[in-house]
Amino acid sequence: MKLNIALLAGDGIGPEVIDQAVKVSDAVAAKFNHEINWVSALTGAAAIDAVGEPYPDETHQACMAADAVLFGAIGHPRFDNDPSAKVRPEQGLLKMRQELGLFANVRPTFTFPSLIDNSPLKKERIEGTDLVFLRELTGGIYFGKRGREDNGETAFDTCTYTRNEVKRLAKKGFEMAMQRSKKLCCVDKANVLETSRLWRETVQAMEKEYPEVEVSYEFVDAVAMRLVQWPNSYDVLITENLFGDILTDEASVISGSMGLMPSASLGEQTSLFEPIHGSYPQAAGKDIANPLATVLSAAMMFETAFNLNKEAEAIKAVVNKSLAEGIVTEDLANGRKAYKTSEVGDWLVENL
Amino acid sequence: MKLNIALLAGDGIGPEVIDQAVKVSDAVAAKFNHEINWVSALTGAAAIDAVGEPYPDETHQACMAADAVLFGAIGHPRFDNDPSAKVRPEQGLLKMRQELGLFANVRPTFTFPSLIDNSPLKKERIEGTDLVFLRELTGGIYFGKRGREDNGETAFDTCTYTRNEVKRLAKKGFEMAMQRSKKLCCVDKANVLETSRLWRETVQAMEKEYPEVEVSYEFVDAVAMRLVQWPNSYDVLITENLFGDILTDEASVISGSMGLMPSASLGEQTSLFEPIHGSYPQAAGKDIANPLATVLSAAMMFETAFNLNKEAEAIKAVVNKSLAEGIVTEDLANGRKAYKTSEVGDWLVENL
Ligand SMILES: CC(C)[C@H](C(=O)O)[C@@H](O)C(=O)O
Ligand SMILES: CC(C)[C@H](C(=O)O)[C@@H](O)C(=O)O
Repeated sequence: MKLNIALLAGDGIGPEVIDQAVKVSDAVAAKFNHEINWVSALTGAAAIDAVGEPYPDETHQACMAADAVLFGAIGHPRFDNDPSAKVRPEQGLLKMRQELGLFANVRPTFTFPSLIDNSPLKKERIEGTDLVFLRELTGGIYFGKRGREDNGETAFDTCTYTRNEVKRLAKKGFEMAMQRSKKLCCVDKANVLETSRLWRETVQAMEKEYPEVEVSYEFVDAVAMRLVQWPNSYDVLITENLFGDILTDEASVISGSMGLMPSASLGEQTSLFEPIHGSYPQAAGKDIANPLATVLSAAMMFETAFNLNKEAEAIKAVVNKSLAEGIVTEDLANGRKAYKTSEVGDWLVENL
Repeated sequence: MKLNIALLAGDGIGPEVIDQAVKVSDAVAAKFNHEINWVSALTGAAAIDAVGEPYPDETHQACMAADAVLFGAIGHPRFDNDPSAKVRPEQGLLKMRQELGLFANVRPTFTFPSLIDNSPLKKERIEGTDLVFLRELTGGIYFGKRGREDNGETAFDTCTYTRNEVKRLAKKGFEMAMQRSKKLCCVDKANVLETSRLWRETVQAMEKEYPEVEVSYEFVDAVAMRLVQWPNSYDVLITENLFGDILTDEASVISGSMGLMPSASLGEQTSLFEPIHGSYPQAAGKDIANPLATVLSAAMMFETAFNLNKEAEAIKAVVNKSLAEGIVTEDLANGRKAYKTSEVGDWLVENL
């Protein structure tokens, strides 16, 4: 099979971790007789520096022409404490999500037995955790009308959802629940927000199409609590953009394996795969960042974008092997030998 | 001193836990030669049943006439899965907040050494945690324009903030930080939201008035993570209404002492004090609910509304004694004898 993949390395540690995912993907492709055509393009601060904007049209064209997009991370500290900056790397991210129509961000959270002690939570609380968030990614308050009034003294943001946007996301949620433990939790704030009431009534109306799925409705504040108390009580959670932003990040620390968590952003046409960690500027260029989340994102890509399950399993197996044998970067070394980013990548390729 | 206190017991376990706080308050008042004039009024589902609305005008008048309000909890499950219910208990809560002008919700989170093992988090992560959230309570998306368009197919909610609203809340935050460890964290989503940019620029402009306070700015998703990872790195956190709703609930499970956490909602004129737990309908009428959060809310009331610090300290001391001696309800009994709600209240009164 011929795989056309757009490669967006981005900022900070992005290029280093992407390099390892490329090496591993190429090795898997060779092993299973595929050919990958990588097309690199600019995003984020790197793109601002080069061409003045964080998601240039050329990059968009490259993504549209590809079968899938593999993405590193974007963001640079020089933009962080400057609320008035005209162009920010994050704008590129949001533009990319919107223009590619990446409506569903899929964020699994699961435990790796060998890493369970890294969690801030007690082992007995997290054992068996295997949940997945579906965060709506192209609507809500991220993309509504915003601005100032009264000479800048009043600011506003608008959260908007249409029934079809909710349906499209919820449909993925129900389908995913059918493939898993058949439990779906709709997270909203229906006791206050009109958009949440639309979410809830839309999901309620879809229940009868999936009679096997056990659906629950929980308020976002309650979920923020229960995620820390009993994360293993959840299976699939669906939610709107901003709640998803907060809760998926909260969920990411549960397992103690944040440096390992992959994600997918599904579009109608092209989908994008990226590690959940950020650009981690302090570590950039030092060859110390953990590449495993990006490598596992590549595995998700083989599975989700190309339906190549054996290839994905091969990657996951070699990642598990590296963890078991302690071939890990300093964040996971716990006092034992720490390997470089590139050394971990090389080891994965050799052991595939 | 003569203390006029409005008493809003509310729903579920509200009346039972309020009873104990009244007993303890009366005992403290007697000991220190104060006289409390309690005026009871209806709220929540109880008020809907009696007079058709959750925050009747009579109740509002009673609160306005009082020096402080002591509040139990509201909410009833029969309203929860009915997004179309015309009158909901929560509306009473929101109306009360708005009409009383309760602009700042103060939510401390701290550990009790004897309860630290109840936390889902590891002891070494939470030891020494002593943080306080200031959540803006009368603005933001809770009170903005909302509705439907396109025959109900599109829903919207509006988040609005004025500079003065932010200033009022931030001022309390700076003042509180000055009384504590002089660290203030402004939690926002300034990389996306215009209201957050207004928050950030307003707080930035106030920094020079409090040169001793070390101010940081963090995105809400990052805080959702760090709260679970290193809660003891925070001191005072200020944030807008919806972020505060989510994060204060998340923070409440950190210490393992959720059944003990008090809160205050500060108004320009009258302030309100309440436990952070809800109406817990499953336990209502059984005399098993933990009254300590409500008793500690009464302590906060003595301190904050009346400047009666010795009285507050006396209450906190006897609560600590009850914990040390295991005079606790079933949620904290850990297999030892569990006392009834009213027995804990009686013991506190006797041991004051
Ligand atoms: C950088 C920011 C705009 C972005 C978001 O809020 O969506 C990030 O936090 C994420 O979750 O990918
Ligand atoms: C009941 C609900 C409207 C309320 C809120 O969201 O403010 C509650 O969650 C709280 O935090 O007091």
